[in-house]
Amino acid sequence: MLRTFRRRQFLQLAAAGALTPLAASRLLAERPNRIVRVHSPQNHEWNFHSLDSFITPTESFYIRNHFAIPQIDLKQWRLKVEGAVETPLSLSMDDLQKLESKTKPLLLECAGNGRVFLTPPVRGVNWQLGAVGCAEWTGIPLAAILERAGVKREAVEIVLEGADRGTVAEPPSPGPIAFARSLPLEKAKQPEVVLAWGMNGKDLTTEHGAPLRAIVGGWYGMASVKWLTRILVVDKPFQGFWQTLDYSYFQRVNGMPSLAPITEMQLKSQIARPALGEIVPAGKPYTIVGAAWTGGDKIAQVEISIDDGKTWKAAKLTGKPVPYCWRLWEYEWPSPKPGKVRVMSRATESTGLAQPMERNADYRTYMIHHVLPVDVEVR
Amino acid sequence: MLRTFRRRQFLQLAAAGALTPLAASRLLAERPNRIVRVHSPQNHEWNFHSLDSFITPTESFYIRNHFAIPQIDLKQWRLKVEGAVETPLSLSMDDLQKLESKTKPLLLECAGNGRVFLTPPVRGVNWQLGAVGCAEWTGIPLAAILERAGVKREAVEIVLEGADRGTVAEPPSPGPIAFARSLPLEKAKQPEVVLAWGMNGKDLTTEHGAPLRAIVGGWYGMASVKWLTRILVVDKPFQGFWQTLDYSYFQRVNGMPSLAPITEMQLKSQIARPALGEIVPAGKPYTIVGAAWTGGDKIAQVEISIDDGKTWKAAKLTGKPVPYCWRLWEYEWPSPKPGKVRVMSRATESTGLAQPMERNADYRTYMIHHVLPVDVEVR
Repeated sequence: MLRTFRRRQFLQLAAAGALTPLAASRLLAERPNRIVRVHSPQNHEWNFHSLDSFITPTESFYIRNHFAIPQIDLKQWRLKVEGAVETPLSLSMDDLQKLESKTKPLLLECAGNGRVFLTPPVRGVNWQLGAVGCAEWTGIPLAAILERAGVKREAVEIVLEGADRGTVAEPPSPGPIAFARSLPLEKAKQPEVVLAWGMNGKDLTTEHGAPLRAIVGGWYGMASVKWLTRILVVDKPFQGFWQTLDYSYFQRVNGMPSLAPITEMQLKSQIARPALGEIVPAGKPYTIVGAAWTGGDKIAQVEISIDDGKTWKAAKLTGKPVPYCWRLWEYEWPSPKPGKVRVMSRATESTGLAQPMERNADYRTYMIHHVLPVDVEVR
Repeated sequence: MLRTFRRRQFLQLAAAGALTPLAASRLLAERPNRIVRVHSPQNHEWNFHSLDSFITPTESFYIRNHFAIPQIDLKQWRLKVEGAVETPLSLSMDDLQKLESKTKPLLLECAGNGRVFLTPPVRGVNWQLGAVGCAEWTGIPLAAILERAGVKREAVEIVLEGADRGTVAEPPSPGPIAFARSLPLEKAKQPEVVLAWGMNGKDLTTEHGAPLRAIVGGWYGMASVKWLTRILVVDKPFQGFWQTLDYSYFQRVNGMPSLAPITEMQLKSQIARPALGEIVPAGKPYTIVGAAWTGGDKIAQVEISIDDGKTWKAAKLTGKPVPYCWRLWEYEWPSPKPGKVRVMSRATESTGLAQPMERNADYRTYMIHHVLPVDVEVR
């Protein structure tokens, strides 16, 4: 709450011209809105408790890197389109920007967002709630590029390869490897899969994947390959490091676990305020706020419990539904009574599917989308 | 050498009736021909330096277990055949043994055999040379069972499931899982894939997988599922724990590593004598002996180098080629000269493919089939 307030105050002050640029940059530096999870390579999450708008500001948006940010010379840079295509392509940024661009908001959530809540602790970056954000992306649909290249009949998947590469220690990679991820052809052709050079109305920044980043709406963030350099059309399902040893989960086939790449975001809601351990003032109204999202469907309802799951009441969904984005919500807690209170939110899709209450062990260290209780004290 | 000599001596003494059964069992207990790699679950390798026959004795044959040996009541036990079949089956041992049985020698090698030679050391059971052996197996071809059940048109793979189960710590399994492995339908129908209840002319022992064990000729040992209880015919490739997170390697697809299950044994030769660090007497003939094998082809040649790979000379292949088995070989080293000597063997298939000199990092912790130098001292 405090941080949000200060941030708003800062923005108001800055907008009113009451801060010199130097003072403004100092204030921002003092109060970053990102939490460092790994210093190098850079892995920062947004302070989700500051949620106050549908669009997440670029400087707050989470950053998930596997390796050092690659050095790219835009003059040399090309997007190569290869493999099972009629016409292999090598496109400069000028070539891309001559095509018809679109701007649309899309949500990204890291597949490990919420991992800090798992007990016992698991391997991986220990994200709390902020490895998620909604931004406006400007670029062209991947479908437009595939159409230009002419996908051959035998094609089944599209591999997206980034310029970032290195050696992974655990699980061990076979020497240095590039970050790469595949999409089934049918997903790749959907309009929510975009090659973006712009974010929130400005040029995409290097830390978010400039010059070009794939944004795969509806899928966890690992599919949204940054520093994109190659699109490879393949005739067999790709079983790359980042969708087998890493970023995979177990499906059950006749009761037996069968490894599958992580793809669609799962139905989820998160409470931005109160925070874990927050002191909530007794006896006066408190607005519980948060967001809810899902990979392919629409959020139909979010319910709140302040009695450890015994009873649930509907929260108010604010704004309008936007495909492949979150829905913000709020709930008026009329008169909190002193004591320890467990607050929970639970989302339901329009299909009737509700967020699960328990963790599914088959998800390995990913897809943390069960109800996450927030224990607070009212006094 | 010593151990082999003593073992031979013991067998001669026993055959001659010179040992009472009690004395014989004591002598065997004192001089086991297996080396314990993991005590519990039981993981024992054969002392490969004792190689002296085409068939590996049952009590010497390596044992690779992932979990405790399951308790099976043969009266209750059934082999279930399920999934994409016309007629699901539930067969007792009596039912199986009424079918036409076959006896054939087949080689098994653990996919991690030789792991102790890898530097830096890797995770996994640290086998030296003895996680390999050739035995005579009695049972029925898997094809006969599949024919009885009637495989449906959509079937692509056959999953073999064992009764052994538990939780794997690293990489973590999704809770307790059974050992299970799949074969493509075309491999499953080959005559070298056998469901065995007999080994080396006797009933299969519990530690080797009784009552029933799959023997998948030509493939690494992980496919030869022990304590077989279920055959599941599936219409999509199975991505179980034991062929993705475990027992997998990387193939290159357009330069990018793509995870694949370990299947066929790789071309390999091993030197049984001399052993690493052995003192070889100078000036008198020494017989270098060993074995060579390959998954699908025939051994055409084994060459020996005693000068650190500068020159190679043909070893003599003994016996006759037997499909999916090893070929024993020997080489007369006429007059070893004093000094430190590196001995190497290199096998070549009839296709002309030779054993590689270097380790391939894409093989992860498996398929250790490059030339393994044996450093000895002649004095």
